[in-house]
Amino acid sequence: MRHNLIEPGDNEDITNERLGSSFSVGKLAAFIHGGEEKLRRRHEILEFVESQEDFQDPIPPEFMSRKERVENNARKIVAMTNKVSFIDQSDVFEEGLFFQSLIMGRDFHAMSLHYSMFIPTIQGQADDDQLDYWLPLAVTRAIIGTYAQTELGHGTNISKLETTATYDHKTDEFVLHTPSVSATKWWSGGLGKSSNHAIIPAQLIINGSNKGLHMFIVQFRDLDTHMPLPGITVGDIGPKMGIPGTDNGFLIFNNYRIPRKNMFMRYSKVLSNGEYIAPKHSKLRYGTMVFVRSIMVRDQAMQLAAAVTIAIRYSAIRRQGEWKPGSNKEVQILDYRTQQYRILPYLAQSFVFLFTATEVKDLYMRVSEQLSAGITELVHELHILSSGFKAVITWEVAKGIEQCRLACGGHGYSHVSGLPEIYSFAVAGCTYEGENIVMLLQVARFLMKTVKEIQSSNAHLAEIARYLLGDKKYKSRFRVWQTAKYEDLIEDFEQAARNQIYSTFDYLQQLQKNNLSPEEAWNCASVELCQASRLHILCFMAKSYFLKIAQCTEPEIIRILNLIGKLYSLHTISTHCYSFRKADYMTDEQMKNVKCGIYEILGKLRPDAVAIVDSFDFSDRELHSVLGRRDGNVYAAMLEWVKHSELNKTEVLSTFKKFLGPMMESGRSKI
Amino acid sequence: MRHNLIEPGDNEDITNERLGSSFSVGKLAAFIHGGEEKLRRRHEILEFVESQEDFQDPIPPEFMSRKERVENNARKIVAMTNKVSFIDQSDVFEEGLFFQSLIMGRDFHAMSLHYSMFIPTIQGQADDDQLDYWLPLAVTRAIIGTYAQTELGHGTNISKLETTATYDHKTDEFVLHTPSVSATKWWSGGLGKSSNHAIIPAQLIINGSNKGLHMFIVQFRDLDTHMPLPGITVGDIGPKMGIPGTDNGFLIFNNYRIPRKNMFMRYSKVLSNGEYIAPKHSKLRYGTMVFVRSIMVRDQAMQLAAAVTIAIRYSAIRRQGEWKPGSNKEVQILDYRTQQYRILPYLAQSFVFLFTATEVKDLYMRVSEQLSAGITELVHELHILSSGFKAVITWEVAKGIEQCRLACGGHGYSHVSGLPEIYSFAVAGCTYEGENIVMLLQVARFLMKTVKEIQSSNAHLAEIARYLLGDKKYKSRFRVWQTAKYEDLIEDFEQAARNQIYSTFDYLQQLQKNNLSPEEAWNCASVELCQASRLHILCFMAKSYFLKIAQCTEPEIIRILNLIGKLYSLHTISTHCYSFRKADYMTDEQMKNVKCGIYEILGKLRPDAVAIVDSFDFSDRELHSVLGRRDGNVYAAMLEWVKHSELNKTEVLSTFKKFLGPMMESGRSKI
Repeated sequence: MRHNLIEPGDNEDITNERLGSSFSVGKLAAFIHGGEEKLRRRHEILEFVESQEDFQDPIPPEFMSRKERVENNARKIVAMTNKVSFIDQSDVFEEGLFFQSLIMGRDFHAMSLHYSMFIPTIQGQADDDQLDYWLPLAVTRAIIGTYAQTELGHGTNISKLETTATYDHKTDEFVLHTPSVSATKWWSGGLGKSSNHAIIPAQLIINGSNKGLHMFIVQFRDLDTHMPLPGITVGDIGPKMGIPGTDNGFLIFNNYRIPRKNMFMRYSKVLSNGEYIAPKHSKLRYGTMVFVRSIMVRDQAMQLAAAVTIAIRYSAIRRQGEWKPGSNKEVQILDYRTQQYRILPYLAQSFVFLFTATEVKDLYMRVSEQLSAGITELVHELHILSSGFKAVITWEVAKGIEQCRLACGGHGYSHVSGLPEIYSFAVAGCTYEGENIVMLLQVARFLMKTVKEIQSSNAHLAEIARYLLGDKKYKSRFRVWQTAKYEDLIEDFEQAARNQIYSTFDYLQQLQKNNLSPEEAWNCASVELCQASRLHILCFMAKSYFLKIAQCTEPEIIRILNLIGKLYSLHTISTHCYSFRKADYMTDEQMKNVKCGIYEILGKLRPDAVAIVDSFDFSDRELHSVLGRRDGNVYAAMLEWVKHSELNKTEVLSTFKKFLGPMMESGRSKI
Repeated sequence: MRHNLIEPGDNEDITNERLGSSFSVGKLAAFIHGGEEKLRRRHEILEFVESQEDFQDPIPPEFMSRKERVENNARKIVAMTNKVSFIDQSDVFEEGLFFQSLIMGRDFHAMSLHYSMFIPTIQGQADDDQLDYWLPLAVTRAIIGTYAQTELGHGTNISKLETTATYDHKTDEFVLHTPSVSATKWWSGGLGKSSNHAIIPAQLIINGSNKGLHMFIVQFRDLDTHMPLPGITVGDIGPKMGIPGTDNGFLIFNNYRIPRKNMFMRYSKVLSNGEYIAPKHSKLRYGTMVFVRSIMVRDQAMQLAAAVTIAIRYSAIRRQGEWKPGSNKEVQILDYRTQQYRILPYLAQSFVFLFTATEVKDLYMRVSEQLSAGITELVHELHILSSGFKAVITWEVAKGIEQCRLACGGHGYSHVSGLPEIYSFAVAGCTYEGENIVMLLQVARFLMKTVKEIQSSNAHLAEIARYLLGDKKYKSRFRVWQTAKYEDLIEDFEQAARNQIYSTFDYLQQLQKNNLSPEEAWNCASVELCQASRLHILCFMAKSYFLKIAQCTEPEIIRILNLIGKLYSLHTISTHCYSFRKADYMTDEQMKNVKCGIYEILGKLRPDAVAIVDSFDFSDRELHSVLGRRDGNVYAAMLEWVKHSELNKTEVLSTFKKFLGPMMESGRSKI
């Protein structure tokens, strides 16, 4: 592994930062990534990816048109899946995600949903015969599938999806139909141009009776010509904020017939006589969503880490302003407290979220094991946690990336920085796989139920909620950051969460006493409910972080992880001032010390900032940012980069001959 | 004028919203836009723009490649400037901005800097002979100019710009030179491909002595062929987050010679013998920046208003979820308190910022008049205010637009919503024309100086700072939103600002007592200093708003403006909880009532939300958003919109033949 990122010819400022750091980058990198062996594998995979000609982009993708990007991605995804045996495919969370990001960058591709939704849904919903038929087709890539749930007018409330599948027992077929414009299937990745199959959730109608949403597997393009089959209208949904290389699509059915056996029948069944057999368990379905949300935590944390890395490295080589006596150079912008304040709290968040990702992965693995043994104990806990993490983390990550981008000044707006792409890629996580507000309200539902149980002394509490039973603390013990113990900080998080959760519960009661229905009261209190969920999740993450770093045995690393943990805690307290001062749990004086603590820790972390982000172990390939280059030689590389601009292919654009030239000529004739 | 936006065939939900509103949209629109006459002119200009064939886009620009957009913009800017006499060109703030936005949309163009920087700088810096020569060329559009200050490695600290202009008295010329990569001129709009002239700030060197930054006017492309002249390297800087139709450029000088008379000589002069004559007044230059910042306030406010309009109209027609008893339809998402909380505080901000824009315009006009009479009294005040507004408003606007975008769910990510473009266009305002943090620290410099003067009883206070002299209030009088008087709310803003400003002053003193140099102390306190500036500006804006609405005489409009003013105030207090609870000025109970007040006002504004945004008087053309269409018929229009996608030009992409087809065929052969 690389113990040292310094190389001859590097920018002097960045080299000095590395020379001046107080700890071993290799050791911190190993702690972050779960050991030396994991780190070695990262480098091995990187080397492999860089050695494969068909994994390379002919030009940086940001200079390609959408069509070129879609084509480039299609080429690469075939190459990638051809060679996927190089990695441990069972390790989706780490090797899988890493391998894909090295090759595909910050975009999805023609087969994203094939792997994340199509195959898992077949595995989860198909009966044995269906499994035998469809799984080999999908796994050998004989077909490309996607998952088309969302409709133009319907997202979260899936019970109101409009697409119908009406059983016709004369022909033993289902007739799929899009009964209105708002029923058009919309958004699915790979649906527009790449896939020839899709899993379609639709309302099952038998003899005029609606049996509710069921899943159907549907071929909609010809295998040989790839033309849409009769009765199908399908296409791309146009340009989006991010993922330009992905053909998100729409799909309209016009009385489109599929065989009866194309309804997935592991749980419900329709017999050839039209008899409907309802599922035994009505709710064993969210496995796929939980899986995707769990993976998202790590991906999101890495996106934030990438943005922080770019901003910190660039701030080390960018010089601006003069206030340091005796220097004939301008100041490194990383020396400005305002700049540190913009970036370093998000550096701390990257660590907390990355360690949360490890925890979620472990929990997911445990649940999967239990489930295969028929134990469902932890399913609900994982569901609540993954919803909450997803909502809290995606939003913090989006804010953090955007702050990092703004901290890079003008160059942060250019695609040369990589940051616009990181932002648009990551922020979508606030919406897909469960809109954040909806997720927070799910967590709140759980919390309010828990409080009710506690108050009726009927509590059988999940581990994650047990602190709600704890004694109420009236005053925070916090004095100054140096003396703050973890136990005290955790107590602060717990009490702030308790105060927020219980006061929201009271508010709900109050609203109902004022003659609101439970639904109306819930709606009126919903902003406070979201805040309660947020505090609950933030509390959980702070506890996890401190537990995790307690495993570290290297003093030089412990020092850094401690500073990061305290910065994270104080910054979170300061951001959620309202909840931490609730019931006067923290005083004005304490809050002032929280703020001063933040400023002082920023100063303590400053000298190690570059080394800390070096420990994320991003290669230039993975980071894909001229501003964030390892070597710090940014400006020369920017000049190289702009040579790819399509406007620079000719010295004089046609605009001159057509419009600007004649205008100026006419102007000159008037002088 | 349109009194009513209801038309046959509109979406039923949006019609019902309009039918149910409590006030006249026409009256509120007139109040917002400064009277019936201004509103009439808006509609006249809109009609004119829609009638001109050469102002139209062949396809929606979001479907064009960068090259196509640059070309389309060049075509339109020539057409626009050909017909600019239709509007009152002296009214840049309103008619000018409006006319341009209707034609160019949310992008800049080849001549943006020609008008905003090139001509104003000639007017401000050229001596009489230079004025006679250059101004007619610029005004008749015989040349296209830009302003190239920023360099690859230098932004805010302009004294360290590296480009040199060395006087060669043998030939009576200046030699312009780019001495290093980081000295490359970078970012200027229109520099890359469109302009043939630029104003270049460069270090003036005479006989080896650096006389500091001066401005030079430079031709760098051939007038007939448009080819770069020998000694010039120039080009486009590549794709950015927004403004794809603008050719922001770079420029490198290789010992490039220009005549002596091309240095602007209104203030400094260089004689042919090399003698340098320094300017009498060293600082009369920021006129152009102040002008641009003042205009930005209105533009930014309108961008936020547009985002809010889109989000509210869409939330009225989007239905999702079921909790209203007796309804067989899903709930309009605008009924969710969380959705209201995401959007309506920004609706309130739009009003506050728009009214601030009017105030800034008035102040700017007064200063311009005074200046032409030699009075400089208000210049500094305008400078401070415009810096502060720019910093506070651009950041709030960016946050608000992004919240509106997120509130539109999945469709907010698609360019069909218009929101990604609004965001990327507006957020750049945080950085250009003075980076926000730098702006806030300038305001803070003024505030700290003021406190010092007050404490030394030597205060000659600017009007905007006079409240700092007021008596300290120890407890807020706020009880509940219904009974809160404006005077009380203003007192809260003033006291919170005072507390933040004075405590920051004390913190600075404290740090210096701890042996930090003044510069170090300033840096350590800089986050608090920014917060002090922010509170100062927020206080000013709240006061302006309440003053402005006091002019309104229509009861039905007053009711709405009151609700908006209270929502703005309470939401700001809640957001800045830390500062408002400082020194226990507000208690836990009061802060709780602030929060409940917000939730209750949201409910009060809900029934009028659509009518309020209708009052911004956006046409579909100006809004440029399928989600925000007046008629609410969103889904059908989305299906129409996607037909423009370049991926939909053929049913089958080449990716099938080249990559995906062979992959699937090979897969099938394995089954």
